[in-house]
Amino acid sequence: MARYEIFVTYKKGIFDPPGATAARALTSLGYSEVEDVKIGKYITLDVADGPDEAARVREMCDKLLANPVIEDYRIVEAQGSVSAG
Amino acid sequence: MARYEIFVTYKKGIFDPPGATAARALTSLGYSEVEDVKIGKYITLDVADGPDEAARVREMCDKLLANPVIEDYRIVEAQGSVSAG
Repeated sequence: MARYEIFVTYKKGIFDPPGATAARALTSLGYSEVEDVKIGKYITLDVADGPDEAARVREMCDKLLANPVIEDYRIVEAQGSVSAG
Repeated sequence: MARYEIFVTYKKGIFDPPGATAARALTSLGYSEVEDVKIGKYITLDVADGPDEAARVREMCDKLLANPVIEDYRIVEAQGSVSAG
């Protein structure tokens, strides 16, 4: 079994409504030091070991987990993942 | 200016509807190797430097960015953040 961490963020220039809302709310709660908030997705994906594993994870991102038109993603194979035959 | 990365995940035992939906969808797309999907939030927070900065970021998480009743969060000060004045 392997674990992948996937970080999905809006592409540069794409408006991030939840981030903008959180920034405004924090400012009105008195956190005037807040300059910017971006809210993306943090996905943990556990997959059984197999051939083309990393390529298939990228495919899953392109097809379902992220929207490549407006989002970027970064995939990290999690440390301590058990890699067995 | 400092940048914090915040990872918000459901607590153990709390049902994660978007994760469960993604897992089912990936399986029906043919990715039978998928064992588990969890979908949390990946927040990037830029704040101006100031006293009690890290404590205030934790406060923002408890008050607004996460729901401490059902979610855990992890805060990482991002590398390469400019720490001035």
